[in-house]
Amino acid sequence: MLERFKVPADARVYVHAEPMRRATEAIFRHLGLSAEDAALSADVLITNDLQGIESHGVSNMLRSYVAGYRDGRLAPTPAFTVTRETPATALVDGGGGLGLHVAPRAMDLAVAKAREVGIGAVCVRNVGHMGGAGYHALRATSHDMIGVAMSSSDTTTVLPTFGSRPMLGTNPLAWAAPAATMPPFLLDIGTSQVAQNKLRLARRVGALVEPGWIADLDGAPIMERVPVPDECYLLPLGGTREQGSHKGFGLGSVVDIMCSTLSGLGPGFLAGASGYHLLAYRIDAFMDAGQFKRDMDTFLRGLCDTPPAPGHQRVVYPGLLEAEEAARRTVEGIPYHREVIAWFARTAAEMDLEFEFLEASPP
Amino acid sequence: MLERFKVPADARVYVHAEPMRRATEAIFRHLGLSAEDAALSADVLITNDLQGIESHGVSNMLRSYVAGYRDGRLAPTPAFTVTRETPATALVDGGGGLGLHVAPRAMDLAVAKAREVGIGAVCVRNVGHMGGAGYHALRATSHDMIGVAMSSSDTTTVLPTFGSRPMLGTNPLAWAAPAATMPPFLLDIGTSQVAQNKLRLARRVGALVEPGWIADLDGAPIMERVPVPDECYLLPLGGTREQGSHKGFGLGSVVDIMCSTLSGLGPGFLAGASGYHLLAYRIDAFMDAGQFKRDMDTFLRGLCDTPPAPGHQRVVYPGLLEAEEAARRTVEGIPYHREVIAWFARTAAEMDLEFEFLEASPP
Repeated sequence: MLERFKVPADARVYVHAEPMRRATEAIFRHLGLSAEDAALSADVLITNDLQGIESHGVSNMLRSYVAGYRDGRLAPTPAFTVTRETPATALVDGGGGLGLHVAPRAMDLAVAKAREVGIGAVCVRNVGHMGGAGYHALRATSHDMIGVAMSSSDTTTVLPTFGSRPMLGTNPLAWAAPAATMPPFLLDIGTSQVAQNKLRLARRVGALVEPGWIADLDGAPIMERVPVPDECYLLPLGGTREQGSHKGFGLGSVVDIMCSTLSGLGPGFLAGASGYHLLAYRIDAFMDAGQFKRDMDTFLRGLCDTPPAPGHQRVVYPGLLEAEEAARRTVEGIPYHREVIAWFARTAAEMDLEFEFLEASPP
Repeated sequence: MLERFKVPADARVYVHAEPMRRATEAIFRHLGLSAEDAALSADVLITNDLQGIESHGVSNMLRSYVAGYRDGRLAPTPAFTVTRETPATALVDGGGGLGLHVAPRAMDLAVAKAREVGIGAVCVRNVGHMGGAGYHALRATSHDMIGVAMSSSDTTTVLPTFGSRPMLGTNPLAWAAPAATMPPFLLDIGTSQVAQNKLRLARRVGALVEPGWIADLDGAPIMERVPVPDECYLLPLGGTREQGSHKGFGLGSVVDIMCSTLSGLGPGFLAGASGYHLLAYRIDAFMDAGQFKRDMDTFLRGLCDTPPAPGHQRVVYPGLLEAEEAARRTVEGIPYHREVIAWFARTAAEMDLEFEFLEASPP
């Protein structure tokens, strides 16, 4: 994550992962989730926070999930129903549950199918927010599989190239492969130039956006460095046509088709709901898995050993900084914005829960 | 394709597709390919030329294929051998043949597996140039399937984000889905900011590159509009980190892993050879295929009906301009650079073949 999105030093409170995990689980259980689903859902959020993916941790997302359960948009104990199936594929009805625990079960189904026939693909409909795609893609890697996770968005915020009306969501896409000794490769990206959640974070910390990140309400790309306007549209990855936004727009459309249309929701811009696509490849369907992981080590180490360009310290591959951050934060605690901790305190009072955060000392 | 990459008007010779197809087939047959493989290979090149994808038509690529057969790098009658297999997957040895005819057969195998178990995935090694990924992805759509095609490159030209040494190829990725009445969705992109072949074309027609398209030999992005330098490196999609190049670098790495590492070639930067990955999804494994295609019409029409941003005429989706161009060029002929026609004349003389191009009148 770019430095500008981090919580400013003077607003940081360091909290260890385990008490924050227990508090988050307690909130989910209070809302009616089973102990298992509450634990899985908390694990997604805390894993994101440990990896430094604040945009998909407890700070931004948990309060919207709480609201979703309270107003009945989310089902706390959803049925997980396979409505169409072949040996390698399934379409799942998520029963209106939160993706934080529905998506891992859909990935587990893809993994089970891949174990039988080589690859497995699962579409999910009638499901809430995925909570970031990376966690779910990574889930396949512990089975010596390659994992892919995508989600369409329930709102349209991203313009097509040359368009003036948003027709796509930020439509995230994650792709993970295991290595032997190096941290796994984990690409976890939105198909917009910048994530909606990052704009929210940028507003909170007063960060500027770069030229070609967003557009005004006429669809014209904003080509100056400015604070985030109150209203704006997102541009696809690439930003402008000259910088390849047709590729980002195309990738966002692929995610839309795989998640919305292939799930039977129709086009995403009419669906008003998210769909998912999860895919698992059994590596030894193609080659020896041990050799693959050793080759991945060579690939990833080769990328890290690339001499840096002028002005840069090092080359990193997708997933490395997240793994390093998780190792650091496991020891030092996770830096939250003071107001996030205040929200937990208020929520504890409302729900009659008790949290003991054991605030860590700043590193 | 951006206007700057087109053949300048005063150098254009219009030739109809059918005589150019016959000439290209005759060259492949002369080089020892079977009639069927020659026809398939010519179909890839002429389809690309009809769609306006000059970078992967006869102009840029055919002479390098001819050289490959002549110096023994390409096998004219390769064996197509499945070396590992599950119900949904296969690893194929391409026998050292050209991808123009090996890739369609690999996609046909993926389609056959998808017909049986829902999806099919095939990796290919020991194979030459794919000739563009779009043709092969599109091949699945006529079976009411979604098609994906990727190829790793045999040379490294693309820098990792912040790196000064190229570690990836342009690693193309194509993704196709059928519609009912609209031309199919076809995303066909390199994972670099600009294709190596487009730089070659830009040199030929004297076009400038945009800021953030390429880097100098130290790895510093060139942020001015300049003619293509004699030596440079490519930047990943996004160009600079601020404009999302970490996403393009990640996507290029995914293609490398799926095509090189999963095929057993090891990391692409050590392989010195291309590998492929082909994937087919049977749509009715997830939902009714007729409904899917009608929903795709709604999606694609919705994108086309998006009001354009100031200064733009229309919004198009990936594959639409290519389909329109193919319809136009089928009637008007394909505009080739005069020197391409001269190459065919020289080659005809060398091979003792006769070509009758029936030059079309310019539109």
